[in-house]
Amino acid sequence: MSSAFRRTVRGMRDLLPEEAEKLRFIEETARKLARLYGYREVITPVVEHYGLLSAKIGEETRKRMYVFEDLGGRKVALRPEFTASVARLVATRMRSVPKPLRLFSVGSLYRYDEPQFGRYREFWQSNYELFGSSKPEADAEIVALTADLLKRINLRDYHLKMNHVGILRGILDKEGIAETQQNDVMQLLDKKRWEDALKLVQEAGGSKRCLDNVRALLDIRGKDTDEVTEEMREVAQGYPEGLEAVKNLREILSLIEKSGVESDFFLEAGFARGLEYYTGMIFEIFVPGMDIALGGGGRYDKLIELFGGGIVPAVGVAPGIDRLSLALDKQETVPQKTGEERVLVIPVDDDMVVEAFGISSFLRKKGLCTEIEAMGRSVSRALSDADRRGITHAVIVGPREMRQGKVVLREMEKRRQETVSLEELHEKIGRNNGQQINTG
Amino acid sequence: MSSAFRRTVRGMRDLLPEEAEKLRFIEETARKLARLYGYREVITPVVEHYGLLSAKIGEETRKRMYVFEDLGGRKVALRPEFTASVARLVATRMRSVPKPLRLFSVGSLYRYDEPQFGRYREFWQSNYELFGSSKPEADAEIVALTADLLKRINLRDYHLKMNHVGILRGILDKEGIAETQQNDVMQLLDKKRWEDALKLVQEAGGSKRCLDNVRALLDIRGKDTDEVTEEMREVAQGYPEGLEAVKNLREILSLIEKSGVESDFFLEAGFARGLEYYTGMIFEIFVPGMDIALGGGGRYDKLIELFGGGIVPAVGVAPGIDRLSLALDKQETVPQKTGEERVLVIPVDDDMVVEAFGISSFLRKKGLCTEIEAMGRSVSRALSDADRRGITHAVIVGPREMRQGKVVLREMEKRRQETVSLEELHEKIGRNNGQQINTG
Repeated sequence: MSSAFRRTVRGMRDLLPEEAEKLRFIEETARKLARLYGYREVITPVVEHYGLLSAKIGEETRKRMYVFEDLGGRKVALRPEFTASVARLVATRMRSVPKPLRLFSVGSLYRYDEPQFGRYREFWQSNYELFGSSKPEADAEIVALTADLLKRINLRDYHLKMNHVGILRGILDKEGIAETQQNDVMQLLDKKRWEDALKLVQEAGGSKRCLDNVRALLDIRGKDTDEVTEEMREVAQGYPEGLEAVKNLREILSLIEKSGVESDFFLEAGFARGLEYYTGMIFEIFVPGMDIALGGGGRYDKLIELFGGGIVPAVGVAPGIDRLSLALDKQETVPQKTGEERVLVIPVDDDMVVEAFGISSFLRKKGLCTEIEAMGRSVSRALSDADRRGITHAVIVGPREMRQGKVVLREMEKRRQETVSLEELHEKIGRNNGQQINTG
Repeated sequence: MSSAFRRTVRGMRDLLPEEAEKLRFIEETARKLARLYGYREVITPVVEHYGLLSAKIGEETRKRMYVFEDLGGRKVALRPEFTASVARLVATRMRSVPKPLRLFSVGSLYRYDEPQFGRYREFWQSNYELFGSSKPEADAEIVALTADLLKRINLRDYHLKMNHVGILRGILDKEGIAETQQNDVMQLLDKKRWEDALKLVQEAGGSKRCLDNVRALLDIRGKDTDEVTEEMREVAQGYPEGLEAVKNLREILSLIEKSGVESDFFLEAGFARGLEYYTGMIFEIFVPGMDIALGGGGRYDKLIELFGGGIVPAVGVAPGIDRLSLALDKQETVPQKTGEERVLVIPVDDDMVVEAFGISSFLRKKGLCTEIEAMGRSVSRALSDADRRGITHAVIVGPREMRQGKVVLREMEKRRQETVSLEELHEKIGRNNGQQINTG
């Protein structure tokens, strides 16, 4: 067999048990949070019509999608994000569900990016979206929920980079610059190509005053939210839509700050996101030492309409699960060990296998993680293997003890063993820390 | 936008909250079981090299794979099953991990089948594989684990269809029929094309005696495992490999039966599975009224070697998560309701939004599932919406009560409300059933 088949496809990767455990820990935390905040899960396909996924994704991402024809000749693609699929659902099968509608998704996404630290061609996100409300409390809830997630997984030193695309769009709108050209400007900003963005505004017919204002706007940034929003307000003078956007951003920030969410903000008026569909507040998660966003979100009030679902304002966030896991690694945050018992049941010979099988099954019913020695090895070889693999207790099943309804229980670490009856076996094992998993 | 984009791609589907919840319940049960039995999770990519996935998948499935070129010109495919990927891992990065090695996977798989009841082009499986042991206790563990999963999700009336491919292969081997031709015979049996299978044996040069024996074998089936294996043994006389296979099947069944696993078996000597890599015991899960298997597995001792990983015997099972969910629906098994409290916090006006936000956050910290009214609606409209959505408690936040550090708590079902202090709020809500989710 060709050696190429012995590797994953470039940009894809395998997660071995330790990495998989971290990913699932973050996924489970994200799912618990969804329940706590009233977001219900929907599962949409990985394979969707290209037309749906490419509609408002932005040129940069569109070029990097996995696109192909299925056996029926349909032009399909692997989803590069969740929002288009969830918006499709809200515009169609869930159209008549009363608003507000809070939806959660989680799963793998695909982009043909150049592989680098933290950027893979298959990646995982959780995704929270609130449909039906245009109020600042909806935006604030999405940001607060994000901060809550980051706290629960013990991410340290992060900040939320934030902006409101309505400010720049308000200025460009008043200059009569078309939406598609605005989108191109946003794409350039997303890539931090400030000068090219300004040049494009000029080419699109932006006036001298407009150019000056956009240039001034792109310079505004800082941690002090009052001060920065005041600077934004000054530049937006004379652009009513722009002023409205600044006011909205202030309301959102005020709600978040006054209600005690612990997050550092960094406002940046020249910050844009690659996806085209944002219409309001946008934000991304960053930690020191990693220059990729760990997740992000914002408001998109026109997408559902585009999919024929009427006017439904929406705001959402997609925390990146594998990127967060990487950030925790970098911060050397280890998930708490459960201190769980792990039991190995060893038959002394082939005649004892049936009994060993039954005892394993009994211990699992009591909630103890239990393996049976399945290699037919001698007791001493099985024990030395158990030592290496972190087994906490060995149960040795032999004919002499079994005749009295007993087995030998060995505490691996203390190298101590005693003969105990089957009735008291699970209690003896669980006694040390009693930390048994719920098997309901 | 074209109306085609308003639907999922043919054969794919969306799972709305109720369906998604059932799927996740089975997935979580499967994951708990993996921990209980000592199987550690690995996550492999959805996109793999075509060469890897097609190597031993069988002609039928090979034709139905989603195959395409990625932007780098690599011939890739969406995985139609887990085993090839997990086997790749065991043959490469996990090669030096001591055996036995128990691995668990769960996720979505892709096959371009004709859509029908229970058969979708995107589907979900959990997957358990035990590497390194050729002993019957390994096979028995995989079957027992399957029965345990089905019991924990409350599937009723199922049976396990079982066979050992070594019996037929033993007969064909002795006749000198090549492995590729044997594979073709197995594929025909998988499709229940018995006569075509017999014809192929004849064309491949099978003797009269061989044909008679194969014909006799294909007729053997029944629930009584002692009786059926005895019939198998009689036909396999004169074929040492075939006899060995019957003996192995008997040992596995004996272990399962004697150790108290509650499952009905149906042995069928003409039963084969579509995947080519099986070398020993095989089985599938069936329930009355559904003619598709809900999952299946078996022993495959040569696959790791094929991928260059040395000789590593292996046995595994892949219960289908969405098919099991469908079977539970059909049996009208509803997952237990949690009887969980759901709280809606309603500010009486915009000035109370910050306070309502803070109270929501406080209640969530106490583990209560809490939403904030995010539509800016009046209290009465918010309450009538809460009624419809199954909210159990409303917390109404008004300025008069807040001045005294209090809010109005309304029990939705009893239409009863009282003014309570913020300190006692979460206790009052939790009091009725105390069933709060663990938010650790």
